[in-house]
Amino acid sequence: MPHISQRGVHMPPSPIRKLVPYAEAAKKRGLKVYHLNIGQPDIETPPAILDAVKHADMKVLEYSHSAGFESYRKKLVEYYKRNDIQVNHDQVIVTTGGSEAILFAIMSCLDPGDEIIIPEPFYANYNGFSTASGVEIVPIHSGIEDGFALPSIDAFEKAITPRTKAIMICNPNNPTGYLYSREELEILKKICLEHDLFLLSDEAYREFCYDGRRHISALSLEGLEQHAILLDTISKRYSACGARIGAFVTHNQEVLNAAMKFAQARLSPPSFEQILGEAAVDLPADYFDGVHAEYTARRDLLVKRLEAMEGVTCPLPGGAFYAMAKLPVDDSEKFCQWLLESFSHNGATVMMAPAAGFYATKGRGKDEVRLAYVLNTQDINDAMDCLEAALKEYNRK
Amino acid sequence: MPHISQRGVHMPPSPIRKLVPYAEAAKKRGLKVYHLNIGQPDIETPPAILDAVKHADMKVLEYSHSAGFESYRKKLVEYYKRNDIQVNHDQVIVTTGGSEAILFAIMSCLDPGDEIIIPEPFYANYNGFSTASGVEIVPIHSGIEDGFALPSIDAFEKAITPRTKAIMICNPNNPTGYLYSREELEILKKICLEHDLFLLSDEAYREFCYDGRRHISALSLEGLEQHAILLDTISKRYSACGARIGAFVTHNQEVLNAAMKFAQARLSPPSFEQILGEAAVDLPADYFDGVHAEYTARRDLLVKRLEAMEGVTCPLPGGAFYAMAKLPVDDSEKFCQWLLESFSHNGATVMMAPAAGFYATKGRGKDEVRLAYVLNTQDINDAMDCLEAALKEYNRK
Repeated sequence: MPHISQRGVHMPPSPIRKLVPYAEAAKKRGLKVYHLNIGQPDIETPPAILDAVKHADMKVLEYSHSAGFESYRKKLVEYYKRNDIQVNHDQVIVTTGGSEAILFAIMSCLDPGDEIIIPEPFYANYNGFSTASGVEIVPIHSGIEDGFALPSIDAFEKAITPRTKAIMICNPNNPTGYLYSREELEILKKICLEHDLFLLSDEAYREFCYDGRRHISALSLEGLEQHAILLDTISKRYSACGARIGAFVTHNQEVLNAAMKFAQARLSPPSFEQILGEAAVDLPADYFDGVHAEYTARRDLLVKRLEAMEGVTCPLPGGAFYAMAKLPVDDSEKFCQWLLESFSHNGATVMMAPAAGFYATKGRGKDEVRLAYVLNTQDINDAMDCLEAALKEYNRK
Repeated sequence: MPHISQRGVHMPPSPIRKLVPYAEAAKKRGLKVYHLNIGQPDIETPPAILDAVKHADMKVLEYSHSAGFESYRKKLVEYYKRNDIQVNHDQVIVTTGGSEAILFAIMSCLDPGDEIIIPEPFYANYNGFSTASGVEIVPIHSGIEDGFALPSIDAFEKAITPRTKAIMICNPNNPTGYLYSREELEILKKICLEHDLFLLSDEAYREFCYDGRRHISALSLEGLEQHAILLDTISKRYSACGARIGAFVTHNQEVLNAAMKFAQARLSPPSFEQILGEAAVDLPADYFDGVHAEYTARRDLLVKRLEAMEGVTCPLPGGAFYAMAKLPVDDSEKFCQWLLESFSHNGATVMMAPAAGFYATKGRGKDEVRLAYVLNTQDINDAMDCLEAALKEYNRK
């Protein structure tokens, strides 16, 4: 029997899915499981954009342009303009989800053996795309003790080697919810210019910024035009994760040309969902106000409840819809599994993502969990009742 | 300014697209261009499957399972069974187009530096996926003089090295239209078993077999269960290229596990089009009869017209909707460009794909073109009038 590739062997399994069988078993036992483990928003997809798909009138479902429908790219230019990002439609490649934008960026900018610096904890699937591409992730530490702020310039400088080609950030951050300030972005710009590194900026959660703060895109940083690559998706902002529509955006023509060749090899992104994405740009300006108010209420409740629990720390996230909490447990993976296997409170339990999977450095994040506040406030409150009771019981054992 | 990766530099541009600007210019000059250059069928997508998308009822457009909706995978099992392919739904991963199935297969089976043997000419995008994966394509020659039959066992044996991990075929073949016989598939099986190689079988054109011949899937070859991987797509069979729905199917659990990790990293295939694909399995059994009759008529007309032209050879393709023709020209790329730039006949011209782009060996296919018979018979006839007149004029120069 022929054996799979080493890359297949080393490809990391999704850390979030390890607990899925335990959750399924819990449901089979009749338990309600509060899913705080994944970033699948419960918010309804705007009916207007679902309707756009229903009203699509085509006789032949053809390949679209490899960079996506021109009409959609032109609409995206409007959208970006409203977000202080100045690009033209030739600088946009519509991708199959944000995932493909990440893959195109890594493949276009880095060769096998090259290094990419990423502050940890980070979105676990960066590991998969790096393994697939033969690229080395070099993690630098951003800790819960600093509220997950950008690591110091010194930490970056220490991590840079002759093989370093890029820095990657997720802003606002998954899994930490951290929103980078202008000062922090200026620091990143300085490092990238000084060491001639690409800045790959995953901005999937652009719309989710709280406390009156505004998101600043890496693509809007003056002087960084040839270094910055924006990796985008409509999954979170329109609660359209199943659409698989993202975007790869940069002013750097050489990078665009390379990414375009990867785009041509896979022919085109899906057509129906491009129609959905195009319609989304025309949603009324107040669409995000409602979403925003809802997530703010959830965040505030979640953090308040967590901080009130004995031994729990949870920095207030400035963006996205995730919070990282430090729990008074030995091993959050064991604890999360125990929650699903052996615990219930009022017929319910909680599913969270153990944080170790978001750290590249072994041993880090062992007492942390990521919570996605993608449930309504009533459910979040009930879930926190569960968690509070669980921590008491777990530590009594 | 940071520079792109070497992989970005070496990524091959799509050979089919080189001529696009010339075609656009021709259209601007008022010419009608008969597009025989790409495999975008003109056949209407069955309205019933487009309607399935319109009737999809969802409140939240969620991620699907990374392997695709279970309901769709179960439907696919029915479809495969009708085609003498016995699998269960856990052996199917729904992919984003056939493209992604090819990428998953190369990534799961081969490491950078490993070799994959492919009879040339072959589908040009295999080059892109190999470059992206760092894998070496080793071409072996199947020539127009033999009607593009499978190369001899000897040719395979000579090409095998310690780094060879797989053989890839496309059956029926793009670009040649060649349909492999059971005898040829048995030869491939023998080679794969003897040298312990994977057989990656791209069967995008399964439904397009002519002259009463039936398609034989690599996955139905007894004894090859651990070696064969089926790469599939709904693009061609339902004229749904824009759907980007394919499938990766194998009995080899180790390969499935690896591919599943690549699938998880990119989260899920697009949702709406999975609904379309699921509906397609329930199309009436006679759906393909009409399609089949239409393509047979087109093929017969195209080949008859080509063979009647002086100095032109065109083996009768047994499947797919492509034909390769040898033309009495010095360089088919120049000729195809000339057709768009400097020629017209009754206000029209023809666009074809120069064959050199389908050969990995430099210098091969220079006097060949690929023609996709994706136009109705009237248009094919008019296009052949053009080509006939063009060859006379070109050779008079």
